[in-house]
Amino acid sequence: MGAQSTPQGVVAGSIPLFAGHPAHELLPISSVRPLVDAIWSQPDVLRLFNYGNEQGNRQLIDFLAARLQRSENLPICRENLMIIGGSTWGVDMITHHLAAPGDTIMVDAPSYRDALHIFRDARLDVQSIAINAGGVIVDDMDRRLRDLASRQRSPKFYYVVPNFQNPTGITLGTERRQAIVDLSKKYGFVIVEDDVYRDIRFVDDLPPSFYALSRGEKVLRLGTFSKTLAPGLRIGWLIGHADAVKRFVSSGMLRMGGGANPFTAAIVADFCSSGRWEKHVAWLRNQYRLRRDCALAALDAAMPRSAHWTRPEGGYFIWLRLPENLTVDELEAQAKAHNVYFASGKGFFVHPEDGAHHVRLSFSYVPLEDLESGIATLGQLIKGARRSRRH
Amino acid sequence: MGAQSTPQGVVAGSIPLFAGHPAHELLPISSVRPLVDAIWSQPDVLRLFNYGNEQGNRQLIDFLAARLQRSENLPICRENLMIIGGSTWGVDMITHHLAAPGDTIMVDAPSYRDALHIFRDARLDVQSIAINAGGVIVDDMDRRLRDLASRQRSPKFYYVVPNFQNPTGITLGTERRQAIVDLSKKYGFVIVEDDVYRDIRFVDDLPPSFYALSRGEKVLRLGTFSKTLAPGLRIGWLIGHADAVKRFVSSGMLRMGGGANPFTAAIVADFCSSGRWEKHVAWLRNQYRLRRDCALAALDAAMPRSAHWTRPEGGYFIWLRLPENLTVDELEAQAKAHNVYFASGKGFFVHPEDGAHHVRLSFSYVPLEDLESGIATLGQLIKGARRSRRH
Repeated sequence: MGAQSTPQGVVAGSIPLFAGHPAHELLPISSVRPLVDAIWSQPDVLRLFNYGNEQGNRQLIDFLAARLQRSENLPICRENLMIIGGSTWGVDMITHHLAAPGDTIMVDAPSYRDALHIFRDARLDVQSIAINAGGVIVDDMDRRLRDLASRQRSPKFYYVVPNFQNPTGITLGTERRQAIVDLSKKYGFVIVEDDVYRDIRFVDDLPPSFYALSRGEKVLRLGTFSKTLAPGLRIGWLIGHADAVKRFVSSGMLRMGGGANPFTAAIVADFCSSGRWEKHVAWLRNQYRLRRDCALAALDAAMPRSAHWTRPEGGYFIWLRLPENLTVDELEAQAKAHNVYFASGKGFFVHPEDGAHHVRLSFSYVPLEDLESGIATLGQLIKGARRSRRH
Repeated sequence: MGAQSTPQGVVAGSIPLFAGHPAHELLPISSVRPLVDAIWSQPDVLRLFNYGNEQGNRQLIDFLAARLQRSENLPICRENLMIIGGSTWGVDMITHHLAAPGDTIMVDAPSYRDALHIFRDARLDVQSIAINAGGVIVDDMDRRLRDLASRQRSPKFYYVVPNFQNPTGITLGTERRQAIVDLSKKYGFVIVEDDVYRDIRFVDDLPPSFYALSRGEKVLRLGTFSKTLAPGLRIGWLIGHADAVKRFVSSGMLRMGGGANPFTAAIVADFCSSGRWEKHVAWLRNQYRLRRDCALAALDAAMPRSAHWTRPEGGYFIWLRLPENLTVDELEAQAKAHNVYFASGKGFFVHPEDGAHHVRLSFSYVPLEDLESGIATLGQLIKGARRSRRH
């Protein structure tokens, strides 16, 4: 994720470890093409070029509802699901429907940079709660909620990437999820579950989603085809209580523009219905696991003992903590001179200085050899910084 | 426009005169298809499936900038233009960037229903100013602005469909536009020029746009391919001052999701660059003029002298004023029994009762014979209502 990191902007020959994109070579163009070729002979092809119904492509809604029922045993029906133009659309729509300028929301510290940017644009009061290896620290959240309540404030929602979080790769544990559901009931906030990395997992099982734990009450969960098919088609989905979905579907924006991207939604629907998506997801998991393994091996080989990093079980990202004597600004400047680019930890915090010793490394985009050599370069720079300090 | 009016929802055999969609048979599928077929052999095809740059498809930006320079002699460069996912995206984005709940904006009375819906969703204070045959009444706007100023309020923006307005088909005159630009400078509000029907004109010349009159200062102008190519591709554009465009392009939403619809934007760019768009627009104008003429002839033949209607020089819509003794609710109920559906005037007003005797007829969607017979039916019902009242 993160089009800011658009690799187009990068100097040729450089290693963009910041790019939260799928690698070009992992985009299943050759299996999408025959579906597009077949679209012209569909009896209702003209409909795909006109305004679509507000809830989105029916075939895709039914496919996703059935998949969620089957794979997670969720009580989902058509009324709980709508198609959106990528999860960004969902975050933006939810933000404006649930909160107004000055309203309080909660996020993790660190949290996904571009979502923070959307919340800042919406002029929200963003309260961030520290995370550790198990995800957000629930006691801290509880304390913050009590503190807010004492000032007659309560957050409108808690935004979280629960699985293989962006930027840390950390997955939030089951008990904490349950505790947060309890807090959401107690304090009346919505949980916005931006679950875009769910299908890029290198383990069999994931904790139950917030949606599952709460039986859909006060949870809005987002999914996307950007990680598992192609971001350029701009298709994702939102699940929630039927009343909430109905409110979005009958909003002015959906009334005016119709449902999300009718033409590309039809391509995605055919990709799913043909069985290609499940096969592609299985293949992708292996490809991304290989990349994750390569990145972790490179880190093990290159980094000094004073550096620490996460070992994500899915997703796109590793979170690297630098030794105390080296700031991310210093490393960034040095790495740039070696044509290696990464996402500074500072962008992922409400208080940027909290990320002054952190780096987000993306293993999704660059080829394996660049992943290795880019991390090797960072390792040398980090070790060099320690040596030069010691003298 | 108006996916609420999605013809899918209509009873088979009925005449949906409410549908502000392009007619299916006017969608240029056969000339789009070869462009889609050719996409796979483009050297950068993979890019179209990944995140795109935030400003949107470069080829399309450059095409549109050159066209605006050429056709309107506008001083537009790349920095003044961005691609958006349909004009709805633009209205939604502008609304949230320029205004917060409780803020005041101005619209015409009547104004485009689904835009009003977006403004209501955003919890804005919507001030509506009456229009007449020349568009919004500037003296009324001036008076309203002074009244607002006396209460320490000033509108954030004025939203207007300047050409072939939805719902009335009325075009705002040049002098009034200039006067509104002057008011916008005096009172500091932005003009949001939703110019989606510009290319569907049956006359050679249009008044200069707000953007042209103000040299781009405090004007955001929207355009779309939904009326002149295909709504289902979800591509439009926004032009404005370079600073404003930069602000949108660097917003959290664009950073997170990347530029608008990379795959379909590439199709649209190729459609434009190949010269097909200009040819299609020329053909479309004739097709829609034919429909407009047919609708007007049917109205002339069917309506009593006590009914009045506009004679639009472009766009999709005719605005019909019913005799005083017949309400739109009564006509709607009767027409439904005859399987004829239209958009009630009430939806287009901040105060619905102001539209209690008005009907929006769309000539864009239904076949000519349905246009004729639908209007004939309405004429009979309106005449019948008058007779039955007389008894």
